[in-house]
Amino acid sequence: MRYDVQVKISLKKGMLNPEASTIERALALLGYEVQDTDTIDIIKFVLDEDTEEKAREEVDDMCQRLLCNPVIHDYEIEINPQED
Amino acid sequence: MRYDVQVKISLKKGMLNPEASTIERALALLGYEVQDTDTIDIIKFVLDEDTEEKAREEVDDMCQRLLCNPVIHDYEIEINPQED
Repeated sequence: MRYDVQVKISLKKGMLNPEASTIERALALLGYEVQDTDTIDIIKFVLDEDTEEKAREEVDDMCQRLLCNPVIHDYEIEINPQED
Repeated sequence: MRYDVQVKISLKKGMLNPEASTIERALALLGYEVQDTDTIDIIKFVLDEDTEEKAREEVDDMCQRLLCNPVIHDYEIEINPQED
């Protein structure tokens, strides 16, 4: 079974986000006033696995080992079976 | 009126995505086999504007001028009024 996987990675609450601050400052320089700027990264891929549970376990493993830094990141995994 | 704004930025179809290729290769080195890897960036902020239409126009302007590179990026704007 093929699954569409989406991992949503954001910084934990309280972590400084220099990318977001830079965007907010640059927008201000152009005359746009915005607040509470934040950035989120999404990684999407297709995974072949027997069951959705196994797929979720494997993706969680990937997050812990490579995709995220569990010390500073929160992550959210979304798995949808592909329709053929 | 305050609006929650979310801009979803992805590379146009056909553009090479070196970040995604690197992730896919690194996952393969760890023994995870995934396909069709892609990355998406999300920028969120809060905007004060009179109407949703005006807010959307202003955010579209920001995308064209700063947030995106219209030559290589597709972007999607989502605007939701904040409930107080």
